[in-house]
Amino acid sequence: MDVLLTGAYGRVGTALVDHLADEDAYEFTYLDRENHPEHETVVADVADYDAIRPAFDGKDAVVHLAGYPETDGTWREILENNVVGMQNALEAAADAGVERFVFASSNHAVGMYEVENAPEVYYPGHGITVDHTDPLRPDSYYGTSKVFGEALGRQYVETRDAPTKFYAIRICSVRDPEYDHPYGDAEHGVDRGDWERGSEAYDEQAARMKAMWQSRRDFAQMTDRCLQVDGPAFDIFYGVSDNERRWFDVDHAREVIGYDPQDDGEKWDAPPE
Amino acid sequence: MDVLLTGAYGRVGTALVDHLADEDAYEFTYLDRENHPEHETVVADVADYDAIRPAFDGKDAVVHLAGYPETDGTWREILENNVVGMQNALEAAADAGVERFVFASSNHAVGMYEVENAPEVYYPGHGITVDHTDPLRPDSYYGTSKVFGEALGRQYVETRDAPTKFYAIRICSVRDPEYDHPYGDAEHGVDRGDWERGSEAYDEQAARMKAMWQSRRDFAQMTDRCLQVDGPAFDIFYGVSDNERRWFDVDHAREVIGYDPQDDGEKWDAPPE
Repeated sequence: MDVLLTGAYGRVGTALVDHLADEDAYEFTYLDRENHPEHETVVADVADYDAIRPAFDGKDAVVHLAGYPETDGTWREILENNVVGMQNALEAAADAGVERFVFASSNHAVGMYEVENAPEVYYPGHGITVDHTDPLRPDSYYGTSKVFGEALGRQYVETRDAPTKFYAIRICSVRDPEYDHPYGDAEHGVDRGDWERGSEAYDEQAARMKAMWQSRRDFAQMTDRCLQVDGPAFDIFYGVSDNERRWFDVDHAREVIGYDPQDDGEKWDAPPE
Repeated sequence: MDVLLTGAYGRVGTALVDHLADEDAYEFTYLDRENHPEHETVVADVADYDAIRPAFDGKDAVVHLAGYPETDGTWREILENNVVGMQNALEAAADAGVERFVFASSNHAVGMYEVENAPEVYYPGHGITVDHTDPLRPDSYYGTSKVFGEALGRQYVETRDAPTKFYAIRICSVRDPEYDHPYGDAEHGVDRGDWERGSEAYDEQAARMKAMWQSRRDFAQMTDRCLQVDGPAFDIFYGVSDNERRWFDVDHAREVIGYDPQDDGEKWDAPPE
């Protein structure tokens, strides 16, 4: 299966590279705004249709991860990268006859449920469940752009049958503790000094991660299922591990695509045994 | 109440002008891309933030009708008028402290339910109901832009409390038979010759209108309710009369804003008595 990864070298793209690139099932093509020495890369910006279009030729699927990745994006950043960029990616896929489209949506499409219930929702026993049928409540331009992307994907599959399958993964937080610093990095302007282990801020964020974590291997497994299953034309799944504290539903993903998460946030950042 | 109407002279804007402009409750300000001799008009394009921003000062509410109005819009037309234009209108309202925002959304945000069930759904006894909780299924870029606009409105009220209330009306078809030709006009390129009364095409479109009609006075009443009620911060209502053949729910609008539709599509285009 020939698969194009857009935004291949971002936080979640690298999880697919690490876990799926060596599988016999896949031949990956890497598209990113920046080159990367490890792989031959199509260097192109998703905001530029003509630049990305050739990379879609001959592909069986695209995993569309490119876009502005954080809730702090200004309207201009989001409009360019996540609205225009999404239509470019879908149109290129449709034009090239790519059958399957997996979209990196986000929990921030429904982020207000968290805002409204934090910090209680980060701790066991909160009793809150949000599933794919709950009303959309974006918390940012970023979140609204994910609502837009999901709707546009559904429009393409239902009105043009191109692509023929579109799955949105509402990714929660793909940040393994052993892999990178969980609370952002210098690139995104997070001051690591504020998040020293043992501080109050650290404790709350660690509690949040235990609820929101999708381990890199669980994200790769969910993406693999989205690429392989003979499922419905359109669907939405929450990208989250089987965390005791999670408030996002995974039963729908279990039923429709056979997602079988291996991790639980209770072991996220646990002290070494 | 000082109310700004954007797109004031379009098909639905004129329904508000005809039915509400003389009410003591309202002082309307008219904004449109084109001037109109009857009223003093702010001539400005919603795609241009700086051009529209001053018209929001001192207003209590905005009824945002401006945008590309049909499902045949290309991505560029929709992006400019309905995506960029929507964010401009919301940002201008927030910046100016306008409390209330009524958005002309559209049935095309969920248009695939019709596509899937036509023409049976145009005739009595179809048994189909679509309400505001059903999954979004846009049928066009136009429909997807309405999904986007609703989500962006919710984002503004929930994250900024500005505006403080946002109501989306998913307008069905505001085309009174005695007022204008029901099936479009020369401006939108519809060939009236195809729609001669008594033809098969006319009969099917007349059947559709009996299901989809929102009379001009019912649309004006619904908008008036959205401007007056002390309701929830965000909601979505179907803009449709109480048609025997309708598939869109009006119970939610009855309960939340006291919508009391006066018309039924069975009398749409009925032979004169």
